[in-house]
Amino acid sequence: MERVKGVRDFLPKDMILRESIFSTLKRVFESFGFDPLETPAIETWELLSAKGGLGEEAVKDIFRLRDKAGRELGLRFDLTVPLARVVASNPQLPKPFKRYQISRVWRYEEIRKGRYREFWQADIDTIGVRSMRADAEILAVVVKCLEELGFDDFYIKLNNRKVLDGLTEDLSIARRSRFAVFRAIDKLEKLGAERVKEELEKLIEKQAVEGVFKFITLKGSNEEMLARAEQMLRSEVGKQGVRELEELLSIAGIYGIEGRLRIDFSLARGLDYYTGPIFEAVIGGAERLGSVAGGGRYDKLVEIYGGPPTPATGISFGVERLAELLRERVELRATKTKLFVASATEEVRQDVLRLAQKLRKDGLAVETDLMGRKLRKQLEYADSAGIPYVVIVGREELGRGVVRLRDMRKRVEKEVEVERIPLSID
Amino acid sequence: MERVKGVRDFLPKDMILRESIFSTLKRVFESFGFDPLETPAIETWELLSAKGGLGEEAVKDIFRLRDKAGRELGLRFDLTVPLARVVASNPQLPKPFKRYQISRVWRYEEIRKGRYREFWQADIDTIGVRSMRADAEILAVVVKCLEELGFDDFYIKLNNRKVLDGLTEDLSIARRSRFAVFRAIDKLEKLGAERVKEELEKLIEKQAVEGVFKFITLKGSNEEMLARAEQMLRSEVGKQGVRELEELLSIAGIYGIEGRLRIDFSLARGLDYYTGPIFEAVIGGAERLGSVAGGGRYDKLVEIYGGPPTPATGISFGVERLAELLRERVELRATKTKLFVASATEEVRQDVLRLAQKLRKDGLAVETDLMGRKLRKQLEYADSAGIPYVVIVGREELGRGVVRLRDMRKRVEKEVEVERIPLSID
Repeated sequence: MERVKGVRDFLPKDMILRESIFSTLKRVFESFGFDPLETPAIETWELLSAKGGLGEEAVKDIFRLRDKAGRELGLRFDLTVPLARVVASNPQLPKPFKRYQISRVWRYEEIRKGRYREFWQADIDTIGVRSMRADAEILAVVVKCLEELGFDDFYIKLNNRKVLDGLTEDLSIARRSRFAVFRAIDKLEKLGAERVKEELEKLIEKQAVEGVFKFITLKGSNEEMLARAEQMLRSEVGKQGVRELEELLSIAGIYGIEGRLRIDFSLARGLDYYTGPIFEAVIGGAERLGSVAGGGRYDKLVEIYGGPPTPATGISFGVERLAELLRERVELRATKTKLFVASATEEVRQDVLRLAQKLRKDGLAVETDLMGRKLRKQLEYADSAGIPYVVIVGREELGRGVVRLRDMRKRVEKEVEVERIPLSID
Repeated sequence: MERVKGVRDFLPKDMILRESIFSTLKRVFESFGFDPLETPAIETWELLSAKGGLGEEAVKDIFRLRDKAGRELGLRFDLTVPLARVVASNPQLPKPFKRYQISRVWRYEEIRKGRYREFWQADIDTIGVRSMRADAEILAVVVKCLEELGFDDFYIKLNNRKVLDGLTEDLSIARRSRFAVFRAIDKLEKLGAERVKEELEKLIEKQAVEGVFKFITLKGSNEEMLARAEQMLRSEVGKQGVRELEELLSIAGIYGIEGRLRIDFSLARGLDYYTGPIFEAVIGGAERLGSVAGGGRYDKLVEIYGGPPTPATGISFGVERLAELLRERVELRATKTKLFVASATEEVRQDVLRLAQKLRKDGLAVETDLMGRKLRKQLEYADSAGIPYVVIVGREELGRGVVRLRDMRKRVEKEVEVERIPLSID
């Protein structure tokens, strides 16, 4: 029978890679004081579609459902909206509340290559902090995570929704068009300047389009970019956005990550809920994939869901893209089993089970034959399953306290003392 | 805004406990050679409701949905049906295929205390093995898991669907009533003998009810029970069931777990798909909670979903019940953060960030102040967040290469050298 369209099974080879990504991210998240949180897969339609939340383009992509009783529901689109709901309904949580969540989200998009309707995200968010210290810490976590995953060539694009707000204010762009303008700008890299201009011209005056383009295509060092923006922007909100970026860069300097940050005024992010700094991490040489992490500050979202005014900032790692990149860079393992303990003859089967139990106590991942197979078939199984070592237990050898240890990759065999098995494999 | 009814948020305190359960289970599962697999949350209605699968009573509880396009879907009810689908559609997987899956399932049950519509299961299954070696290994894993979780007083009830099949054959119970009879028997502990008898009398002859009760209430040692069953059962399938249990007990002996196993002919399990040995693990003194793990052999399920005839056996841990029991037995932690590095004055804030980064490199989970709070407020936060240690950085002390280390639980403070911080906390 068939799977549902657009969702996947993850066989061990894929899942072992994903779990190694999760465990690296978790270790770094926890080292910065983020704790785990989990929320339900299903949320009410009311929550998911709330105004000022995901925004109309994202709301179209929600995996919308009706339950048996006819209630309107949806599978969560991201991990940020559920977090904002949790924070709104748990005012007792000490602030800052720093949580991570590594879990699945669902999007009912057109099915095409590389797009799935169910996938993982790994999010960290800091709730309750107005200061740029929180945003700088988020970026320090991102840098550490990508380094620990083995990437060296990467950078984080940085902008501020307040800067873009200021720009639209200066250009007298109507407030109701603002989010549509941001979404159009956000597609610059994907669609190119001409098509984005066409899209913008449907929304705003031609002169305003020119003004937007002049600003978002600014190039230079972070200092130069901020100096130019400060000159160009007239509205207070835009100037405040510039000051926030300056403060963020200054704290990033203490973390030693300022070299990873690149101000890019064309970064806009697609969702409505951002209100301050926004960021996207990109792997050098893999720009075609888009960003591997993206996020920003969303100071209004908790309030939208009924909580008190609560500043918040965070980022989401795209686990699918990280997995795609790492699949080419690391050796994939089909199994976490290290060792197969094989019986050379029927009479040693009990000894094999006992030896396997002993090796498990030593911390090894060990399999034994469950199918009554002959030695040759046991070796074939270990080989096809990708188990790197086989211990062959024979009666005569066992009498001398030794076994044969076979390295399945190098295809070499040697005799080792039973006690020395754990020391003899890598 | 509200959550969907019957589902929960897991705040860090709950989630840290759950993750410690997951990591113990994973470690043991992997030590026996089980590898991770993940399947989608959503399956087709056709798959979930297939005849010979979950069975009509369970099908009623499926969280049934329609997507935007009107397709009939459901959230997965268990992790076994999706596994059988994966195995049916991936004939290339080497056999035995041993996988674990720790993930969520959904049941659209009446909302009442202790019942949730979304919860975790942790499953191991061995696919492709007809021999009782696979079932015995599953039980060895269960024993090891419960020991590692800190339980000492527990046992595993053991029966065989073939034994119950033989019993119904001997009593000339119609095949179409068989699953309903099993489900009625399965409620013996919950509803008591009288109510189960009433339920059975609606399904089968009074004389057959007596025959069923005489058999399922047999008591004695495992050897006595099997000897009595061998005498009483006349049909071939029943006798085969007894032989399987004998073989299973004998292999369990090699693993040294036979003392944990109790033959109990009233164990029936609720789902239709079982075909051989069935098992349920119970914690002594917590029988009121029901079993903490349950499963059995299901040799027909892969075929039902379109695969070749494929023997299979496995068990599912009920994470909710394990969490409920452990909540009373272990000290709950509100955070995994070990250490808060506090600034005594404004001028040391940069030093604080640098020291925190250094301690993270040493493997510690460390937080710093993000809110520009005074020292007293920083200490209050660390206390309310449940962080066990605070390092207080002061300018004068830092000049001497020391900091003050405060144990928040014992409420004592001492001066330690910066280099010795990691060694000074437990």
